[in-house]
Amino acid sequence: MSDQCLFCGIVTGTIPSVNVAEDDTTYAFMDINPASDGHLLVVPKQHSQDLLEIPAEDLTAVTLAAQRIARTAVKEFGAAGVNLLNCCGAYAWQTVFHFHLHVIPRYVDKTKDRLVRPWQPGTSDDKDAITALGDRLSAALD
Amino acid sequence: MSDQCLFCGIVTGTIPSVNVAEDDTTYAFMDINPASDGHLLVVPKQHSQDLLEIPAEDLTAVTLAAQRIARTAVKEFGAAGVNLLNCCGAYAWQTVFHFHLHVIPRYVDKTKDRLVRPWQPGTSDDKDAITALGDRLSAALD
Repeated sequence: MSDQCLFCGIVTGTIPSVNVAEDDTTYAFMDINPASDGHLLVVPKQHSQDLLEIPAEDLTAVTLAAQRIARTAVKEFGAAGVNLLNCCGAYAWQTVFHFHLHVIPRYVDKTKDRLVRPWQPGTSDDKDAITALGDRLSAALD
Repeated sequence: MSDQCLFCGIVTGTIPSVNVAEDDTTYAFMDINPASDGHLLVVPKQHSQDLLEIPAEDLTAVTLAAQRIARTAVKEFGAAGVNLLNCCGAYAWQTVFHFHLHVIPRYVDKTKDRLVRPWQPGTSDDKDAITALGDRLSAALD
């Protein structure tokens, strides 16, 4: 729990939110600047800054809660799909430094869905460079 | 296991890939059309089409493997952050219908990072509409 953390305030109720679901470990609430209709966030109740820091148990609980809510959102809203997104670090678009997983229902109807594709596949496929990076990462994991 | 599935072929080795990590349940390999340097995918070895279908145990294992690899990638590549992304359904940019979690290292250096922000926060914040969708979703979960 961080006194200055917006999402800690939401979890404890000192800052208002539109709650969607809650269990012992996680809290889900609507994003106030949604990328699509029904866009929500799932957070661990216990403060972790980001993906690098969050304990395995909290990450697991958040992910399973997100899956459960995503299934219901797709059905209830008649969505054509859903994205899960985590942003870790300011350069990865993280703006609140309490781990959160975006659950973003997707629609054929573009009035409900304001996302743009974050990259175009096929613009960079230097096989040797990819292999070198993969080998480097694999070795660093050992 | 699906005979026609590209990622089942990668998991079993009939289709080549640059493997990064592997355990009993998961397989991680480099994306051949990377959005950033070091962009990789983590998949369950057992075939599931997408987030709606994947069993909890496989989803958990994939997520924890992704976290482990993300931590190493950030350190090894000197990344400024990382994104995790799951695309569920063609309208959510899914192109291979075997569940996969993108692990996308992010960089200050834009020659290494070809992503664009998928939405601009603050373009849609109709509080009543957000509350109505949240209440509807919450009720559907009960």
